[in-house]
Amino acid sequence: MTTQATALLTPSTGAPFERGSITRRSLNSDDVLIEIAYAGICHSDIHNVRDEWAPGIYPMVPGHEIAGIVTEVGSDVTKFKVGDRAGVGCFVDSCGTCGPCRAGEEQFCEQGAVMTYNSTDYDGDVTYGGYSTHIVVKQDYVLHIPDSLALDSAAPLLCAGITTYSPLRHWNAGPESKVAVIGMGGLGHMAVQYAHAMGSHVTVISQTRAKEEDGKRFGADDYRAMNEEGTLKALRDSFDLIINTVSADIDLNAMLKTLKLDGTLVFVGLPENRQDFTVFSLTAQRRSLAGSNIGGIRETQEMLDFSAEHGITSQVEVIDADQVDEAYERVVNSDVRYRFVIDVATI
Amino acid sequence: MTTQATALLTPSTGAPFERGSITRRSLNSDDVLIEIAYAGICHSDIHNVRDEWAPGIYPMVPGHEIAGIVTEVGSDVTKFKVGDRAGVGCFVDSCGTCGPCRAGEEQFCEQGAVMTYNSTDYDGDVTYGGYSTHIVVKQDYVLHIPDSLALDSAAPLLCAGITTYSPLRHWNAGPESKVAVIGMGGLGHMAVQYAHAMGSHVTVISQTRAKEEDGKRFGADDYRAMNEEGTLKALRDSFDLIINTVSADIDLNAMLKTLKLDGTLVFVGLPENRQDFTVFSLTAQRRSLAGSNIGGIRETQEMLDFSAEHGITSQVEVIDADQVDEAYERVVNSDVRYRFVIDVATI
Repeated sequence: MTTQATALLTPSTGAPFERGSITRRSLNSDDVLIEIAYAGICHSDIHNVRDEWAPGIYPMVPGHEIAGIVTEVGSDVTKFKVGDRAGVGCFVDSCGTCGPCRAGEEQFCEQGAVMTYNSTDYDGDVTYGGYSTHIVVKQDYVLHIPDSLALDSAAPLLCAGITTYSPLRHWNAGPESKVAVIGMGGLGHMAVQYAHAMGSHVTVISQTRAKEEDGKRFGADDYRAMNEEGTLKALRDSFDLIINTVSADIDLNAMLKTLKLDGTLVFVGLPENRQDFTVFSLTAQRRSLAGSNIGGIRETQEMLDFSAEHGITSQVEVIDADQVDEAYERVVNSDVRYRFVIDVATI
Repeated sequence: MTTQATALLTPSTGAPFERGSITRRSLNSDDVLIEIAYAGICHSDIHNVRDEWAPGIYPMVPGHEIAGIVTEVGSDVTKFKVGDRAGVGCFVDSCGTCGPCRAGEEQFCEQGAVMTYNSTDYDGDVTYGGYSTHIVVKQDYVLHIPDSLALDSAAPLLCAGITTYSPLRHWNAGPESKVAVIGMGGLGHMAVQYAHAMGSHVTVISQTRAKEEDGKRFGADDYRAMNEEGTLKALRDSFDLIINTVSADIDLNAMLKTLKLDGTLVFVGLPENRQDFTVFSLTAQRRSLAGSNIGGIRETQEMLDFSAEHGITSQVEVIDADQVDEAYERVVNSDVRYRFVIDVATI
């Protein structure tokens, strides 16, 4: 039996959101039906509905930061039961057999993971995301949200959380590390909390000092502003790891020079423009430049459990469905502390 | 007692070489005096005498690929005795106390290692390199050249060898790795031999197929030419490690896409121009871009011993002192297979 879900959808590129009805598939034996409580607004939602990365599939229902409650399970489901708190992130399926899938890195599935929305699944059906009342997802791609995390502030962990947690783990942030986080937005405020909880010394590099107090509350040991002269020069050879969360262009070459010997600068945002650097900035201290892309299911669960253990959540502003268009404008203008979350009951 | 050495020197930027006399310091208790037999010509020698990287110190005596025989030792020298075969590479001193020095990575000395030529030592004296009959160096910065390696073809190992060996070790090239080497010149022909000896599958990516036979003789399993259409496209997601030995610009973005998940592209040459890339090329497969810079003394000795064990040397063309200016032109035109070495007896 299929489920009719009410959704916030955009009928064409850049059009305002409207309410509509979408059909969720009848449950396969390994599916769970989730009644969605909250859906985070990620900057990539905006890129997608504006066709800024690629032509979108319309109507589009964005949303890949999903938190809710399981209301029905397929006959073979063992990992969830009705009433469980559940999360869904950026993808809802993958081939399950390739090297990356077997290694728990489904985001790098060689066949291409099925994205939560604006994608087609392996049956050719279009996927619709979290700005909707219900979603049906294979149990293996659903996460358990620990009881101690509120569903609204947990929702953004499914993308903003794992996107920053994963590179910190991959590049071994720990008590010996000096970590810098570029940008104090939706991703940045998560990166600061995780790096701090991993025991690292954390420096925020932001445009201004406007969010300094917040940054220190999130665990930053140091806070630097790019609009002050000589900021990067004073940070030469300082960091083991830099997580660059901003999509705007940075002075990459100057930023590289703030890395210590064997340090790595990791992009987790996706700037539109090509980035350039002088090779000497790398060779001089055997530095690296890298990119990271969300995380696998196993690591996403680990991130949620780590968040619960350390009391880490996203700082959110909960909005009604009618405020989404306006919220998009505010995200584009960096006018949010730090993540909008849609109260799905208002759809 | 100082030593008067005969040297090939260039009196000013870009001027032809001429013979002259330089004074080598009287031996400190931990110094060795080396009678130089052969000195390799490295492309960086050319950059230096042409002030292409920075204003040079003149007169300049280049040469940091030095092989010879110890003819005198200071009173406290324990590592060498008269008659030993000895090598000197890119640097001749470092602070010895900073983190990198203690870790055997003197090339990253925080006070700045003393380069073999075109530099000043910690006493403020200008350093002169290997295009000369003698050199005096602290024993800790002198390498043992194994008996099985001929001195002429061993000389280039001191720079071209370690420059390629070190990143292969640092990024764990081994029997499970697919390694690509961009460029089949002085550095490239060493990288192919080392990667092959480490058990990796080796692909050469060259401009043309002109050196294919040589490449396969050096151990390449595959050889691709950039002047054939679709070369990089056919290599998508192929390599764990790419060693880029060329200083010319490459299509970095297309090259990045030939890396597998978690693969790394390492620059060991120093292109003059800024390099650019799209961040997506990194994030899509968590790829890295890095730079490597020669190697430390301990690793240089390991490289020499590894070379002896595996019968690896540079393929050299031995020239007389009178041919150096001409040889420089040929290096610039990539017209050498694969390294010029000066027979110092002809100076």
